[in-house]
Amino acid sequence: MQFSAQQIAGLLNGKIEGDAAVTVSKLSKIEEGETGSISFLSNPLYTQYIYNTNASIVIVNDSFIATAPISATLIRVESAQSAFGKLLEMYNQVKLNKVGISKLGFISETASVGKDIYLGEFAFIGENAKIGDNVKIYPQVYIGDNAVIGNNTTLFAGVKIYSETIIGKDCIIHSGTVIGSDGFRFAPENEEGNRKIAQIGNVIIEDDVEIGANCAIDRATLGSTILRKGVKFDNLIHIAHNVEVGENSYLAACNVVAGSTKIGKNCMFSGQVGVVGHLQIADNTILTAQSGVSKSINKKGEVYSGSPAFEAGKYRKAFVHFRNLEGIVQRITQLEKK
Amino acid sequence: MQFSAQQIAGLLNGKIEGDAAVTVSKLSKIEEGETGSISFLSNPLYTQYIYNTNASIVIVNDSFIATAPISATLIRVESAQSAFGKLLEMYNQVKLNKVGISKLGFISETASVGKDIYLGEFAFIGENAKIGDNVKIYPQVYIGDNAVIGNNTTLFAGVKIYSETIIGKDCIIHSGTVIGSDGFRFAPENEEGNRKIAQIGNVIIEDDVEIGANCAIDRATLGSTILRKGVKFDNLIHIAHNVEVGENSYLAACNVVAGSTKIGKNCMFSGQVGVVGHLQIADNTILTAQSGVSKSINKKGEVYSGSPAFEAGKYRKAFVHFRNLEGIVQRITQLEKK
Amino acid sequence: MQFSAQQIAGLLNGKIEGDAAVTVSKLSKIEEGETGSISFLSNPLYTQYIYNTNASIVIVNDSFIATAPISATLIRVESAQSAFGKLLEMYNQVKLNKVGISKLGFISETASVGKDIYLGEFAFIGENAKIGDNVKIYPQVYIGDNAVIGNNTTLFAGVKIYSETIIGKDCIIHSGTVIGSDGFRFAPENEEGNRKIAQIGNVIIEDDVEIGANCAIDRATLGSTILRKGVKFDNLIHIAHNVEVGENSYLAACNVVAGSTKIGKNCMFSGQVGVVGHLQIADNTILTAQSGVSKSINKKGEVYSGSPAFEAGKYRKAFVHFRNLEGIVQRITQLEKK
Repeated sequence: MQFSAQQIAGLLNGKIEGDAAVTVSKLSKIEEGETGSISFLSNPLYTQYIYNTNASIVIVNDSFIATAPISATLIRVESAQSAFGKLLEMYNQVKLNKVGISKLGFISETASVGKDIYLGEFAFIGENAKIGDNVKIYPQVYIGDNAVIGNNTTLFAGVKIYSETIIGKDCIIHSGTVIGSDGFRFAPENEEGNRKIAQIGNVIIEDDVEIGANCAIDRATLGSTILRKGVKFDNLIHIAHNVEVGENSYLAACNVVAGSTKIGKNCMFSGQVGVVGHLQIADNTILTAQSGVSKSINKKGEVYSGSPAFEAGKYRKAFVHFRNLEGIVQRITQLEKK
Repeated sequence: MQFSAQQIAGLLNGKIEGDAAVTVSKLSKIEEGETGSISFLSNPLYTQYIYNTNASIVIVNDSFIATAPISATLIRVESAQSAFGKLLEMYNQVKLNKVGISKLGFISETASVGKDIYLGEFAFIGENAKIGDNVKIYPQVYIGDNAVIGNNTTLFAGVKIYSETIIGKDCIIHSGTVIGSDGFRFAPENEEGNRKIAQIGNVIIEDDVEIGANCAIDRATLGSTILRKGVKFDNLIHIAHNVEVGENSYLAACNVVAGSTKIGKNCMFSGQVGVVGHLQIADNTILTAQSGVSKSINKKGEVYSGSPAFEAGKYRKAFVHFRNLEGIVQRITQLEKK
Repeated sequence: MQFSAQQIAGLLNGKIEGDAAVTVSKLSKIEEGETGSISFLSNPLYTQYIYNTNASIVIVNDSFIATAPISATLIRVESAQSAFGKLLEMYNQVKLNKVGISKLGFISETASVGKDIYLGEFAFIGENAKIGDNVKIYPQVYIGDNAVIGNNTTLFAGVKIYSETIIGKDCIIHSGTVIGSDGFRFAPENEEGNRKIAQIGNVIIEDDVEIGANCAIDRATLGSTILRKGVKFDNLIHIAHNVEVGENSYLAACNVVAGSTKIGKNCMFSGQVGVVGHLQIADNTILTAQSGVSKSINKKGEVYSGSPAFEAGKYRKAFVHFRNLEGIVQRITQLEKK
């Protein structure tokens, strides 16, 4: 699709400087801009690039003052960054706007599906599943029996949703993610040998949750594993049975949360963090990369590091000395000699 | 399905107190019990909930003595916990009792399949594969050429089994798990550039093994990567080429075991543990979360922590001092001043 | 398939000692060799096994001198190891030599496919996708709109390639891996609540790249996430948006590289390594297992350990003292008493 500077300025309520008829078909970074692309300038560190970018259109802040000639058409807006973000979003919506039910998909007779859904090839919907309006189910997705998928939710290619899972509205789940697999609980003491404890709970995912690729969220043994409204997960995250993650908490890649732990609201966990089972983590807790939490955190809004994790400030100080342990031991040896 | 207190008491050899005709259709926790559900009371800490639960039936120990009126029907059994576990299991068996070969699945002409199998939509069985009796193959599963799947094994939606893999009886493999991908071995010194070493071994999984979601178990370069009888894996575990995991060893989420390492029997590894290649790990070894093993462990039944890992007791003591390194250095400075 | 010693010696330019008519159908380790298999002897530590192996044929170095009778047919070559590697490779090529387009696969009308491709059952090729010659697309693979797959590339069962992804020639991608999922970027400060930043860049994978099972490589927010020529990935690796991995760098299992980080050429990262976002990592950098890099590395060819990582030599020394912190504190207490 081609858009003219005129059309884009109209969408963004911007003022044009230069050729209003020039057209673009893609978005680019200003330092990599090619002919036929639109870019933006917001960070002053990138101002240098505007004078020789090949981008055909550049969105700039109202306050921008050029100090040399610019070949690109400019569109002036209040905030170039947020205007460009709006364009990205519109572009994405067009790109992802799939609709229609493929004849090569499978819908159980007892399942119900809403209006205007997309069901891709080789996707499967199980018995009594309930699919809302505008849901996008990409090829090779599996939705088990009795699962519920809310309006406007997108399941990318190959997502696997086990039976009984409930997913809210406006969620996005990326390829390869598995929701509702059995929790890791066994009764090894049983006389019949290592015996599986049946996992008959489910997973509940509230509205506006996004989950990255190749995550694994286990169902509860009994009751529900719950991701609250607005939770965002990066890729390759493991959530064990009966865990609850509070509203708007963000977990980065390769996090592991063990069974029955309750995480508060607005938490931010960096990559490769681990949290052991049966803990309570207070709201607004921040965990730095690779930390491992072994005790409940009761005070809100603190930052933790290390394995086992403790206050990040103390960790940083201790680590400075750790790096220098050789020197510390030399000082002791020195003292002993005296 | 609805069951009466009468029917359930019959199954569990229990004695009824209250309305024997009341029916239930699901299982619940006593503190969350709704009308129409059955729950149990075993842990004395939860006794308070029995007096106002909405669960229609509660299974209790023979020894339970009520100290206030209870509206639910009680079923008295020797052990409420194990009776409830039995119910969970029966419920699960009914739920997972899929049978039949979908016309939308694909079975190679040269493959053989046993009695009473389930083959879901868009599942694939390759050439010369041998599938046992009562095997459950969920939608979108891939079983490569010459693979063997033993009786009563379940492969959940989207499991990928590469060619030549051998899986025993009574195994459970969860969605997204990949068995038999190539080991990570290259010959960088080769004059033709970085060259792949062909991986032509396979993976052997013995009986009664359970593997969680999104794991990756590589085939051997030559010979076999082996998971022995009774091994249990959580989610997102990586097992490299030619590894062997001994009987009844349990690995928690996000474990990484590098090439050719041999792990003994009855080991217990917590989450995010790493073990480097070409090691021997003794039977009954316990590794705490996030530990990293860099040397063989010869003594059985010990506990290790840290990265690189050493005795857990020593690690705990060292870590107490690590947290206080700032204070330790101050003591040294103090001494130096004197 | 059966091959005689005569045929194999012909392939390898070897000299036969013993029965040239004996046939084999598989490859084995010398210490596990069964009748009908071919093995090799290169490492002198294994010489003992040649005198009682059941392998029907053993490839040996020209220089090998037997000190006892050997029942197997010998094939003498310059280097037994590289000759055997050549056999492995030929065996693998035959095994993986699938060709043909299944009627149960799906190719969009606007997609183009090259010569002699393999398209397995339930595989999906989206709109305007371009598939090169000799590409192998196993069952249940998903290739999104506008994706490009170069000649001779293999995508194993269930690989998911999002739209706009570009993959070069001679690549291998293992099952469960996801390429092109959205980057983990949100604008939490937005007045409309936590808001997704549209991810409209793509992933570019150059020639001769191999990626293990269940990895997740995110698309760029804008521009491209790039894996350069010859990059090799083990399983379960996370690569965030806008990352670039330099030529011939090797990442072991469960690595995590956060957003916009640039990794140099010929790097070697061990298992469970993490690298935070927006860093530069110099060429030839080596990271030991479980290390966590928090600052750019400018000096080429160095080795780092720890979390946060620093020079590996210093880490090892510090860690020796860390293990003995209890003893160090006792020395201080001793000094204080004096």
